[in-house]
Amino acid sequence: MTTVGPVRVGVLGCGNVGSALVGLIEAEAATIERRTGLTLELASVAVRDVARHSADVAAAPYLTTDSHALVGDPSIDVVVEVIGGTEPAFDLVVQALKAGKPVVTANKELVAVCGSELASYARAAGVDLLYEAAVGGAVPLIRPLRESLAGERMTRVMGIVNGTTNYILTRMTDDGLTYAEALGRAKSLGYAEADPTDDVEGYDAAYKAAIIASTAFGRQVQVADVAREGITGVSADDIFFARRLGYVVKLLAVAESGPAHVAGGGAGAGGGSGTAGRECIAVRVHPAMVPVSHPLASVRDAFNAVFIEGDAIGELMLYGRGAGGLPTAAAVLGDLIDAAHNLRSGGGGRSVALPDATICPAGALRSEYYLRLEVADEPGVLAAVAGVFGSNEVSIRSMEQVGMAEEASLIFITHEAAEPNMSGTVDGLGRLPAVKSVGSVIRVIAGPTTGRLDR
Amino acid sequence: MTTVGPVRVGVLGCGNVGSALVGLIEAEAATIERRTGLTLELASVAVRDVARHSADVAAAPYLTTDSHALVGDPSIDVVVEVIGGTEPAFDLVVQALKAGKPVVTANKELVAVCGSELASYARAAGVDLLYEAAVGGAVPLIRPLRESLAGERMTRVMGIVNGTTNYILTRMTDDGLTYAEALGRAKSLGYAEADPTDDVEGYDAAYKAAIIASTAFGRQVQVADVAREGITGVSADDIFFARRLGYVVKLLAVAESGPAHVAGGGAGAGGGSGTAGRECIAVRVHPAMVPVSHPLASVRDAFNAVFIEGDAIGELMLYGRGAGGLPTAAAVLGDLIDAAHNLRSGGGGRSVALPDATICPAGALRSEYYLRLEVADEPGVLAAVAGVFGSNEVSIRSMEQVGMAEEASLIFITHEAAEPNMSGTVDGLGRLPAVKSVGSVIRVIAGPTTGRLDR
Repeated sequence: MTTVGPVRVGVLGCGNVGSALVGLIEAEAATIERRTGLTLELASVAVRDVARHSADVAAAPYLTTDSHALVGDPSIDVVVEVIGGTEPAFDLVVQALKAGKPVVTANKELVAVCGSELASYARAAGVDLLYEAAVGGAVPLIRPLRESLAGERMTRVMGIVNGTTNYILTRMTDDGLTYAEALGRAKSLGYAEADPTDDVEGYDAAYKAAIIASTAFGRQVQVADVAREGITGVSADDIFFARRLGYVVKLLAVAESGPAHVAGGGAGAGGGSGTAGRECIAVRVHPAMVPVSHPLASVRDAFNAVFIEGDAIGELMLYGRGAGGLPTAAAVLGDLIDAAHNLRSGGGGRSVALPDATICPAGALRSEYYLRLEVADEPGVLAAVAGVFGSNEVSIRSMEQVGMAEEASLIFITHEAAEPNMSGTVDGLGRLPAVKSVGSVIRVIAGPTTGRLDR
Repeated sequence: MTTVGPVRVGVLGCGNVGSALVGLIEAEAATIERRTGLTLELASVAVRDVARHSADVAAAPYLTTDSHALVGDPSIDVVVEVIGGTEPAFDLVVQALKAGKPVVTANKELVAVCGSELASYARAAGVDLLYEAAVGGAVPLIRPLRESLAGERMTRVMGIVNGTTNYILTRMTDDGLTYAEALGRAKSLGYAEADPTDDVEGYDAAYKAAIIASTAFGRQVQVADVAREGITGVSADDIFFARRLGYVVKLLAVAESGPAHVAGGGAGAGGGSGTAGRECIAVRVHPAMVPVSHPLASVRDAFNAVFIEGDAIGELMLYGRGAGGLPTAAAVLGDLIDAAHNLRSGGGGRSVALPDATICPAGALRSEYYLRLEVADEPGVLAAVAGVFGSNEVSIRSMEQVGMAEEASLIFITHEAAEPNMSGTVDGLGRLPAVKSVGSVIRVIAGPTTGRLDR
């Protein structure tokens, strides 16, 4: 490694993450130099309004409003983008890459929407485009997926990637709050925005799911390919019944690859579409029942975690703080050191333009399901209900009746079933006179295998 | 990145890991090429006795007994060492590095004992020395510590890094087995060796602890610097009382850095040595009481996990299969792809010769403790016992008496205390006439902070 003077860093944006990063670069320069031989030097920080940031003593001497000049400055070696959103971030990142500067970004929207295009620019210039901080904050996820697991045949990656919804669901589970109460508490603590749509409807998680799937499977997955369902329909009753059955409810981003997860690939009823045997990728964001014994079940409050299943590795989980200025800045700093090292040694430009993913037909996906029905407690109801399941080729794993008055809840867990069969079941149940309402339908995650030394 | 023909791989050793690696290289070549642009090609596999491996169809065409010729072969680009032990591994790895070949090793003993010397050779040659598989099998740990967290001020890294002992302790906890029964079951399942000393006395974990500490803190820690205590003294009673108090017992490798963990740095009694304020590193392997709410508490059976605390990241945990041929080979393969990439692009040689660590004086370490006493149930016992704690400046956080016959157990949890004070307490208690025996003394790990979005 040739170390020729400091690596000069330009930062675009000085919000929570940018400001924390500036502080870290100043505070940890000596440690970084001892451990890596690299000297990082802050060169410039571009913001829209200098006056707004004048109280930030670490950043103040470096502030500029001319972000294009920062990116074009030949004395700046590496560019960090922590503005967020696609504009003006996209133009600035392209300009930096074209100028041969490695780029580190924490911007999930930019990477999810424009990642493939930006990777082409990075590859053409032979420089790095790194985005560890775009998913899971401080959790090291992108680097393990891209590097440690580059030779791994991953079958499924499931993540709790949105801290706001995990906080809400944890409070509903632990404190017995309703969704509205838990959301209110999240807002009052500043964990949820005044308009929480982006988090609670799963949009934030969908961006991250697209990035995870693309990185894990080496095929470009678009945000539009992510089937998305939020947590606003999860009731206190669902949480209660989940616990009783040995589950907790989590909002998961699930990315799957391979023929085994599509119609005809799994055991059980409902198979036979034309996709059997072909490799395809399915990416979904939805509430899920996670067995309490599953490592993801113990991820509480605002923590994030990603659980990875692969042929050789078995199961992995990466867990940590998914948000916050300082943890996110720590992830940016790790990428920054990597980019600086590669710039000095010539080892950058590992980005590969990914071929487009083949997305599994939505109707071909299979899952176990939890389903709650409100029924009149009269003779013959269960037979009628069971008949609807049977005629749709959905097989019931367990059933429990709760309440013995004129109104009762029936709680079902099904065996693995294809989505169209489950939709057909829900439609059929809704037409039964004794069914007062079809409550929540929530996917159920099977437990992981037990630890074996396997030697 | 320039891709000029395949990267040819020589493998030293063909046991569980080597054999699995050979299979993976063959099976995943196309995936690796698509995702990284690199073509890996198996060139040669060195074993002691070719006849013993002839049934391994993937490896058979490549077998040789001349490991020095393999390492010296100019057509071989990268060397993988999965022999284990320090001889002949050390000589072969040095020969490879001197010849300018990157080396990937899964050998904990080699890295723990000779890592610093080997890093100097690697640095001099400008090539990689990678050892992800040496600790925690498939768990991505070394790369996150070296790269993602290169700019992080880590304060403590705690790991469950030995699957055999975690299996034994899990069976004692879940099935109420004694240590001897659980060990017997581990042996019968092939999880423990006929002579289990290396695992149950913490030697295996101590090698890994030295590697973790050196990598995390960027200072070389010797195996001899690791204070080591195994699990043979952990009784079924300890496990029972731990559960009752809200803890599970785990064998932990704990690496700490900073003044806060040494005498005079913490709150409470016992301070005042000359080390206050100086940075030092303490590395220990010992059974510990882990709060059930701590993420490490849910790491069961043969799984491994490492929990990392740092100033910016907060808390991280990396979890997965810590042993087994295939998971370990998967980690080797990740390193191999990294080494191949760096070889092609010129980005290797990131190894840094580490300065020696300053090890905290053993007497200066502080911890909370669990202590179990068998006492005669007679008036004045508790006062006498409490007096011994007090005169040694160890303050009691909680006490519980179990059993009301002539013999009773007293279970204490202390506040943080220095080791010499705790030793003094144990000695003093042993001299009290009413104390029939001083049972286990086990360190207690404080719970992690609660997740916050912190934004």
